[in-house]
Amino acid sequence: MSSSTSNEKTSAVLTEDPKSWIGKSLVSVTQITPKGFDFLVTIAQQMRDIVRSEGGDDRLKHKLLATIFYEASTRTSCSFQAAMMRLGGKFLHVDGNGNSSAAKKKESLEDTIRCLECYVDAIVLRHPLTGSVPKVVQATTKPVLNAGDGIGEHPTQALLDSFTIWDELKEDPKVVVFLGDLKHGRTVHSLAKLLSQLRPQSDLVLRFCSPSSLVVPEYIIEYCKNNGVATELFENPTEACKGAQVLYVTRVQKERFETEEAYESVKGSYVIDKAFMELAPKNMIVLHPLPRVDEIATEVDTDPRAAYFRQMENGMYVRMALLALVMGKSSP
Amino acid sequence: MSSSTSNEKTSAVLTEDPKSWIGKSLVSVTQITPKGFDFLVTIAQQMRDIVRSEGGDDRLKHKLLATIFYEASTRTSCSFQAAMMRLGGKFLHVDGNGNSSAAKKKESLEDTIRCLECYVDAIVLRHPLTGSVPKVVQATTKPVLNAGDGIGEHPTQALLDSFTIWDELKEDPKVVVFLGDLKHGRTVHSLAKLLSQLRPQSDLVLRFCSPSSLVVPEYIIEYCKNNGVATELFENPTEACKGAQVLYVTRVQKERFETEEAYESVKGSYVIDKAFMELAPKNMIVLHPLPRVDEIATEVDTDPRAAYFRQMENGMYVRMALLALVMGKSSP
Amino acid sequence: MSSSTSNEKTSAVLTEDPKSWIGKSLVSVTQITPKGFDFLVTIAQQMRDIVRSEGGDDRLKHKLLATIFYEASTRTSCSFQAAMMRLGGKFLHVDGNGNSSAAKKKESLEDTIRCLECYVDAIVLRHPLTGSVPKVVQATTKPVLNAGDGIGEHPTQALLDSFTIWDELKEDPKVVVFLGDLKHGRTVHSLAKLLSQLRPQSDLVLRFCSPSSLVVPEYIIEYCKNNGVATELFENPTEACKGAQVLYVTRVQKERFETEEAYESVKGSYVIDKAFMELAPKNMIVLHPLPRVDEIATEVDTDPRAAYFRQMENGMYVRMALLALVMGKSSP
Repeated sequence: MSSSTSNEKTSAVLTEDPKSWIGKSLVSVTQITPKGFDFLVTIAQQMRDIVRSEGGDDRLKHKLLATIFYEASTRTSCSFQAAMMRLGGKFLHVDGNGNSSAAKKKESLEDTIRCLECYVDAIVLRHPLTGSVPKVVQATTKPVLNAGDGIGEHPTQALLDSFTIWDELKEDPKVVVFLGDLKHGRTVHSLAKLLSQLRPQSDLVLRFCSPSSLVVPEYIIEYCKNNGVATELFENPTEACKGAQVLYVTRVQKERFETEEAYESVKGSYVIDKAFMELAPKNMIVLHPLPRVDEIATEVDTDPRAAYFRQMENGMYVRMALLALVMGKSSP
Repeated sequence: MSSSTSNEKTSAVLTEDPKSWIGKSLVSVTQITPKGFDFLVTIAQQMRDIVRSEGGDDRLKHKLLATIFYEASTRTSCSFQAAMMRLGGKFLHVDGNGNSSAAKKKESLEDTIRCLECYVDAIVLRHPLTGSVPKVVQATTKPVLNAGDGIGEHPTQALLDSFTIWDELKEDPKVVVFLGDLKHGRTVHSLAKLLSQLRPQSDLVLRFCSPSSLVVPEYIIEYCKNNGVATELFENPTEACKGAQVLYVTRVQKERFETEEAYESVKGSYVIDKAFMELAPKNMIVLHPLPRVDEIATEVDTDPRAAYFRQMENGMYVRMALLALVMGKSSP
Repeated sequence: MSSSTSNEKTSAVLTEDPKSWIGKSLVSVTQITPKGFDFLVTIAQQMRDIVRSEGGDDRLKHKLLATIFYEASTRTSCSFQAAMMRLGGKFLHVDGNGNSSAAKKKESLEDTIRCLECYVDAIVLRHPLTGSVPKVVQATTKPVLNAGDGIGEHPTQALLDSFTIWDELKEDPKVVVFLGDLKHGRTVHSLAKLLSQLRPQSDLVLRFCSPSSLVVPEYIIEYCKNNGVATELFENPTEACKGAQVLYVTRVQKERFETEEAYESVKGSYVIDKAFMELAPKNMIVLHPLPRVDEIATEVDTDPRAAYFRQMENGMYVRMALLALVMGKSSP
């Protein structure tokens, strides 16, 4: 009984029925059905229309959100906070790394959350420890949105990445290329899983292009295969991009290589610049979870295919949709 | 003349007349009369009803609060901030330990507050130096709520503790037990003072149960006696709890003991667990100012007598009431 | 073409026409015409009336401001945040020195701002590097208010200083004295430039009174002369104040002197105390950008001529006016 209740709390299925979202926690992308995703896309697009025409609305008036971050993340925390405010709600921010009691006293994470939930209607939590978010979901009665737990899940990132793909392409993607360090990099793993889950048994092909020392983990390949989605490995970015509609770039970090030479030998091939884009498909959008360092040259920013700043903006609309849904306000 | 004005600012008497609260600072629990406390309880209960039915209201719209913390306190600052937002107000937070000018420049505390008060309608201040809050109250024209000044006062904590006692018991408490390190621990001292002041010359008995090296200071005993309230000292928690309606637990910190052995010899007796609760009175509520470490086992959390998370939640309602009262908005 | 667009973005002329402010960035005081300043003063005075009578209004409802500070400044950031909230808007705060990605990752400043601008309607930016604010203005599509860039500009400080002078005097100033370390001190340089620009070819005299080792830079003198404004150098504060309507005090910092003796020999003369004020003109207001340490004795605070806390408060009204203007809401 208790373990079944436990499953219900951490793995509620989120569908096209607004009621399926109310009061639920979002722990993992695996909770979202393909139709649930389409529904989320529709709501997020409505959010964009509202922000562009009116700046926001008041559907979350008198609602409070706690954004609790035990790991630095300006972008993710600001995006959630902006989303909450644009819907008329307010937020409390707790920096678990800073001067908070949470950081300095020996209180358990569950106790900290049980205290903070007394004040608010929903919680956004980032924590460096894999598995900490589902543990917290068990301890609380308020909906929790996972904003990243260690090398585990970061579902709102995968959702905003996927939203951007469908929003930009206006049709199902057929060839998606992941580029860079695919061994580490939670965003690639989450997005690959989500895409295969949203288009199971389809003509979708996921291409993983990385130096041989940084290939995507086998379990991600397995996950895609189990969903009936084809995968291909590449080392050459130009080859990988042939016929692609989406290029998802991540950083190749020097410190991941064993020797300076190993790094120097590959780094040039993983920089997307104007010359690369001239040879790339004319309709292939470029995404990046940001921040970037030099893996995409700034000269690419003005290329209409460079979608990474639109992707960033979409993060706010997707989070507005998620906050509205879990607080039962999918309509104003 | 100047010293009489000074007294008026730091020791305004707060009664059942809403006018007695408007624009006043709360420095110490000694300002609150028994009828003033009953009035505060009524307003705080109304606040709870409002939050549970509507999430909040707009009575503090266009009001700004500054929460200025020179000492870490997630709970207290979040509770005040949530209280302000639930009433439609907004806040500025200043972390005196962090990157603020307040922390880095050699400005006096009075100057810092005189600047910040220009922007806001009320101030919540925590400072590690005993006596700093009354000093600030002299320098400012806006109401200041003391959120803890060193080993001095922490009146809002004592008020939320007392609120919880009356709210849970629905009648006057007769036997209240304080457990743990009663030598240090500002919350015990403040609450004992407040309780004796709220029920002077009554049948109330305050029991102080601690290791002999951590007994309650003599001046607290004297304070109770002067109010005509009986006190008793105990070392055995089970004995102390006989016939009690309230057990207020605080932590016994290892570092307070002279030797490891001295600590080991007592620590077991000061842990409240399921076994202890089975022998305890059936109507005895358990309170704790939180955070706890291991002085209350988590297995007790589901016991209906475990009132410490309700106590935490009450903190927001009591602070909503205080903010509304000092800003002249006891009704919406 | 591109450089002309560039100039338009960083040096839009701000006049008495409300349309000239909408969507524009404020990089430097040189953008503001004398009539534009008068217009700003009128709006700021209206803001004061609104705050004093109603606390604020809702003209910036559904607007979001990002306050991004790469340098500590409680006063400036709180003042902008309070200004935004008093107009019904909300803000995101990013502490570039703290736990943010902005602080920890190697992302460029332009990229950080391009991300944050996705969420908000306007940006307030402080950065220690001179010239960083105009660089950011080129990269973003949202209006940016310069809150200080290194030893460069701090235009909102100069505007609130000037506002205070006209608001207090109710007429054009004739003799303004700057006192203290005039070699360093961005606020003196900005204010001197702004005053000479607001009253070109007039009877205005700017007196610079400092130890000989800390005299005002030659280019400031030149700037004034080019505007047809007279300047005079002094070493003796009492002499400098004869016939003055404004004394603008800044700190003489010990660490600016080569020897302890050099410091000791001058410091006494640059402390404004009761004795000094007794000999000073009866209608001479005293300003200070704050925080002060001991260059103005606290005994002066109750002198009606001590205008520095009113100046502080005016900061909020001037920033309310600026935020309303750039967001196109000069009327509610």
